[in-house]
Amino acid sequence: MSVRDDIRVFDATIRDGGLCNNFMFTDEFVSALYHTNVRCGVDYMEFGYRADKRVFDEKDFGKWKFCREEDLRAIVGNNDTDLKIAVMADVGRCNYKADFLPRSESVIDMVRVACYIHQIPAALEMIEHFHALGYETACNIMAISQVTTAQIKQALSMLCSSSVDVIYLVDSFGSLYPENACELAQLYIDAVENTDKKIGFHAHNNQNLAFANTIETLSYGVSYLDATVQALGRGAGNCSLELLLGFLRNPKYSLYELLKFIEKHIPALRAQGVVWGYDLQYMFTGLLNRHPKEAIEFTADKRGDYFEFYRSLTDHD
Amino acid sequence: MSVRDDIRVFDATIRDGGLCNNFMFTDEFVSALYHTNVRCGVDYMEFGYRADKRVFDEKDFGKWKFCREEDLRAIVGNNDTDLKIAVMADVGRCNYKADFLPRSESVIDMVRVACYIHQIPAALEMIEHFHALGYETACNIMAISQVTTAQIKQALSMLCSSSVDVIYLVDSFGSLYPENACELAQLYIDAVENTDKKIGFHAHNNQNLAFANTIETLSYGVSYLDATVQALGRGAGNCSLELLLGFLRNPKYSLYELLKFIEKHIPALRAQGVVWGYDLQYMFTGLLNRHPKEAIEFTADKRGDYFEFYRSLTDHD
Repeated sequence: MSVRDDIRVFDATIRDGGLCNNFMFTDEFVSALYHTNVRCGVDYMEFGYRADKRVFDEKDFGKWKFCREEDLRAIVGNNDTDLKIAVMADVGRCNYKADFLPRSESVIDMVRVACYIHQIPAALEMIEHFHALGYETACNIMAISQVTTAQIKQALSMLCSSSVDVIYLVDSFGSLYPENACELAQLYIDAVENTDKKIGFHAHNNQNLAFANTIETLSYGVSYLDATVQALGRGAGNCSLELLLGFLRNPKYSLYELLKFIEKHIPALRAQGVVWGYDLQYMFTGLLNRHPKEAIEFTADKRGDYFEFYRSLTDHD
Repeated sequence: MSVRDDIRVFDATIRDGGLCNNFMFTDEFVSALYHTNVRCGVDYMEFGYRADKRVFDEKDFGKWKFCREEDLRAIVGNNDTDLKIAVMADVGRCNYKADFLPRSESVIDMVRVACYIHQIPAALEMIEHFHALGYETACNIMAISQVTTAQIKQALSMLCSSSVDVIYLVDSFGSLYPENACELAQLYIDAVENTDKKIGFHAHNNQNLAFANTIETLSYGVSYLDATVQALGRGAGNCSLELLLGFLRNPKYSLYELLKFIEKHIPALRAQGVVWGYDLQYMFTGLLNRHPKEAIEFTADKRGDYFEFYRSLTDHD
């Protein structure tokens, strides 16, 4: 019946959900979500990416692909709340030396550096840069289900020698079963045992296990828990924030305001044609431990020929 | 990488799904599902209830509420396959002494007796009757999340002294988290340790945990695994058969034919207005550990005021 004070609920709705609509959220939606998160006791809200404008054309994306300081402030003002503001910076797709103010001049509290395992050296450079600017930092090592244990151990060892605050286990393909997720979580937790670093988990719902894996890894000691409203995120989506808040027994978190947000804003988003959530095509790519891109295409094409699609994925001739 | 020979996949689609459409499945649907299950290597298929015609009016229900011998035979002939045929018999709602032939004259292989904990004595009478007729028997103790451990232990002890073959842990309200489900599963498994009885698990998906709980209890030694095609079942539905077959590594089970069935038959069922599956209203009743009836009503009324509904469920003035 006790609560764990180390738990941090991390809302990644705009960032992961932005992958479903090219970050074309209205200010009303983002502002309402911000105030909802504040009222619900959510600990962090990730507003999007700070992507490199030399790589991505601003005309092709909504503003949350870039998270300019003035766009953040238009929503949060000086953010005089307990909710911390985060943005994501992708290795190789972020002009990080030019595009970040010192934390003292920014409303951003945390920068999450996303990378694949072979990009760890580049991620470490970025992490030290952000740390020197005063930000909390996290490293999200993606696609972990395709990486060997030896590689993970090496990456964790390198990160343990860095200034990073949080290391994220990321099930990008939604291919982990609870047993696998917990084994990996234990590996991460063991690695940071004698440090003050924390472990996070970011789930995808390809096999309808995002929430289950999140609460199972939580029981192993993971403390930063990513979730998105109504599981809004790429492909099959993520761990849903409402399920997570319902589960946590800490009175700090409240479900009521989130329900008001959902009933007011989610039907409109769906009506705009934004599509996400568990379906068979995502189960297939999760089962086969591969990137969901073909499943996303299958969805966009409004196909329903699941058998043929699965056959094509497993046809190795 | 090994497979467990004790696993039995139990398709309860027509029986639990029948609660969504008053068992009004077409013969084409039921026949196609039967042949699909045979081809996929599914071990058992439950065709419905054998309900008491003195209690339920045949005009109000499809034939699978009653599962008459001739209706079963119209689908399965003599069932010269490896798939076993099951029906469910509810305590107090089954004229069991009159309505069952000896197994040697029936296509039914297993009768599952469903009861609440206080009905165990009545269930035991039925089980012994069915056992004497030659049937395999199971006892599905429902609504287990509202029962004390002492009561469960007593029920398990009584069942261990009976002829029952399989004892089912049933999460009727979808309120169990993996941790709770596994603790209960361990209790059941310990109880049958020195017998040849098996333990089964029947999940509901109120908190999107039906599949996760099924594979987690499986890892604790549960061997009879209930699932339904596309999770078709009352309210939030069940553990989906496609997720389960995808998970099991036993080459005996195949996913391909199931995908063909889904793409051909499920859209038609949805088009008929049959509604099931995870949604917030079911999460609420799962979270609050109560019967989903109000959530089913909320769904039938096509309501979307989640906040007000949750408030009403938690309003104890």
